[in-house]
Amino acid sequence: MINDFIYDIPVRVYFGRDQLKHLGSELRKYGTRVLMTYGGGSIKRMGLYDRVVEAIKEAGLELFELSGIEPNPRIDSVRRGAQLCKDHQIDVLLAVGGGSTIDATKFMAAGACVDHDPWDFLDLKKWAPIERALPIVSILTLAATGSEMDCAAVISNPETQDKIGRLAPALLPKASFLDPTNTFTVSAYQTACGAADMMSHIIEVYFNMNEDLYMLDCFMEGLMKTIIRFAPIAMREPDNYEARANLMWASSWAINGFVNGGRQKAWSCHPMEHELSAIYDITHGLGLAILTPRWMDYCLDETTVSKYVQMGTNVFSIDPTLAPMDIAHEAIGRLSDFFFNTLQLKRTFPEVGIDETHFALMARKAVGGGTLPGFKPLQQQDVEQIFKMCME
Amino acid sequence: MINDFIYDIPVRVYFGRDQLKHLGSELRKYGTRVLMTYGGGSIKRMGLYDRVVEAIKEAGLELFELSGIEPNPRIDSVRRGAQLCKDHQIDVLLAVGGGSTIDATKFMAAGACVDHDPWDFLDLKKWAPIERALPIVSILTLAATGSEMDCAAVISNPETQDKIGRLAPALLPKASFLDPTNTFTVSAYQTACGAADMMSHIIEVYFNMNEDLYMLDCFMEGLMKTIIRFAPIAMREPDNYEARANLMWASSWAINGFVNGGRQKAWSCHPMEHELSAIYDITHGLGLAILTPRWMDYCLDETTVSKYVQMGTNVFSIDPTLAPMDIAHEAIGRLSDFFFNTLQLKRTFPEVGIDETHFALMARKAVGGGTLPGFKPLQQQDVEQIFKMCME
Repeated sequence: MINDFIYDIPVRVYFGRDQLKHLGSELRKYGTRVLMTYGGGSIKRMGLYDRVVEAIKEAGLELFELSGIEPNPRIDSVRRGAQLCKDHQIDVLLAVGGGSTIDATKFMAAGACVDHDPWDFLDLKKWAPIERALPIVSILTLAATGSEMDCAAVISNPETQDKIGRLAPALLPKASFLDPTNTFTVSAYQTACGAADMMSHIIEVYFNMNEDLYMLDCFMEGLMKTIIRFAPIAMREPDNYEARANLMWASSWAINGFVNGGRQKAWSCHPMEHELSAIYDITHGLGLAILTPRWMDYCLDETTVSKYVQMGTNVFSIDPTLAPMDIAHEAIGRLSDFFFNTLQLKRTFPEVGIDETHFALMARKAVGGGTLPGFKPLQQQDVEQIFKMCME
Repeated sequence: MINDFIYDIPVRVYFGRDQLKHLGSELRKYGTRVLMTYGGGSIKRMGLYDRVVEAIKEAGLELFELSGIEPNPRIDSVRRGAQLCKDHQIDVLLAVGGGSTIDATKFMAAGACVDHDPWDFLDLKKWAPIERALPIVSILTLAATGSEMDCAAVISNPETQDKIGRLAPALLPKASFLDPTNTFTVSAYQTACGAADMMSHIIEVYFNMNEDLYMLDCFMEGLMKTIIRFAPIAMREPDNYEARANLMWASSWAINGFVNGGRQKAWSCHPMEHELSAIYDITHGLGLAILTPRWMDYCLDETTVSKYVQMGTNVFSIDPTLAPMDIAHEAIGRLSDFFFNTLQLKRTFPEVGIDETHFALMARKAVGGGTLPGFKPLQQQDVEQIFKMCME
């Protein structure tokens, strides 16, 4: 049975090379005092910082800045940003960067509207309501998380070793600027991690035995084919516009909610990976690449094999006349080949410095002390088993 | 080169069986005085009329009605509706029906905001600006035109034998209710015409030699496969929810603008068909089904064959090792087979009562007295030739 759903993605996207000319008028809709947020110095090295500042000045807007947002962004950055918004009566936040910068900016925008500590939004025991947020505009520099077109954000708290995500409609950006040339300087390694993250976003939804809309399965297969085709090109030719453009637009559509239809949305690999990177601070996409094929292998049985066959035949063009279990294993093999050979990502936990020390803790946190209700419901011991499969 | 584009589709869609519970709160956002517009009595026979009226009354809203909107909606209906809005200070229009009802309602909503005749919006010599419109909500009962999620509308003027379409952001519905069960009573013939219309919307964009995003081509191929798979099921089993749901959501996405990316948007078969149905009042989708394979045949040459090969291999799974021209002809043949055998639509002009009398006039109007700048630029004599190909 296909469940009911509400589709509502009112983000305006300016896609292409020559769109910053619209930045001033877009920001002006929300006021005159702009807080620009970013990470390290990469946007300065690539010249984007200067172009953005110039557009803001030309529009007669007042500019404030917050830099130093880290990968796997931390609650302390969010606290700083929320306080800046309050101190300077900020009207609109402009996040310039990848998913980390945009995610942190979302919670700054929400934190600016409340009196309590922003971590209260993410503390599972408090889960403070997110009723509103200052308007957010983003300029994307990394195709991966989809934060530019969704209402989700993930924040880390090193003190508590937590990495927690949350969705709230108020966090949706009003507009995002997607210029593929802003990703030309992304390294081959980061391009690969971004591609793995995008693949995971699709696989988390695609692997679901609930009946849903065939047209959305077709779309997800198209997105997977797009990533598989263009990620290696972007790694080899970092300034290939067609490759960067396809990866960039695919990254948004992999996770903006459209592909879900009426599917239940419980994910599996993301909760597991969040526990890894909360402790080890490895790149999110890399953790997902290591986990995903093992998780697929662990969940494969007679009741789930049809989904693997669908992926194998439609995405990897595996001969549909083979036995279903053979197609399924071949599909997992092709995906592993994509992650570990084509994208050249590390294949095992030991290669990225993870040992068994925290498996029990991480598994318990991933299942929230109960069951992770994804494609196949997973208990703590299932997650520990999947972690063990990543050791070799 | 991939052109820049702006993506902006802020329509909220309530999809599924049990969504009318949200109708009252959705309408209330815009005010209390609702003009409900519809066509003939079909929404009464299927019980939808009563359910909508009940939801409106329960929400404490004041209901006004305009019925009798015709297929290929006429400017006189638009005039009546615009006047009603003015006379009763309507706050929001609720279109309940297919594309004809929604299209007419869009121009009522715009007409309500100006002092001049609504035809001035469509008269090519006047082309009055469409700066605003009253808010529009739709409840869709026919999967075909995509009017529920786009800002376009087509209106006929029998006095001038014109049928003219226009796009304007102000015409975009605020929200649309898509309940596949509301299409269970659509006849096999109307289901077929709707499917042909949707196929044409995709083909008009897909057949374009400008380089654009591969991921959008994949999506269009998925939409075509969806229509080809589910249209015959819906014809055989009118209350098959899965088939109706896939057709309904595909109809919206075939034409809401997403598939365009940065492609130039000039269409070919629609302008030709509009001239047919302006004079002969045949069903829009039927006219498109007859024209499309002939137009594809006419435009096929060495410079365009690659697009036909792409469609043939990816949509119809034709053996990619065959010669390109053979694949192209086979693809046209498969599409004709889908239209004229699977969907059981009439194949030629004579079968639907069209003869050569008005070919020259219709062709001249279709090219606007100059060139139709679509997939292949067409002059009047090209269009006349395509019309002639439809005679047998």
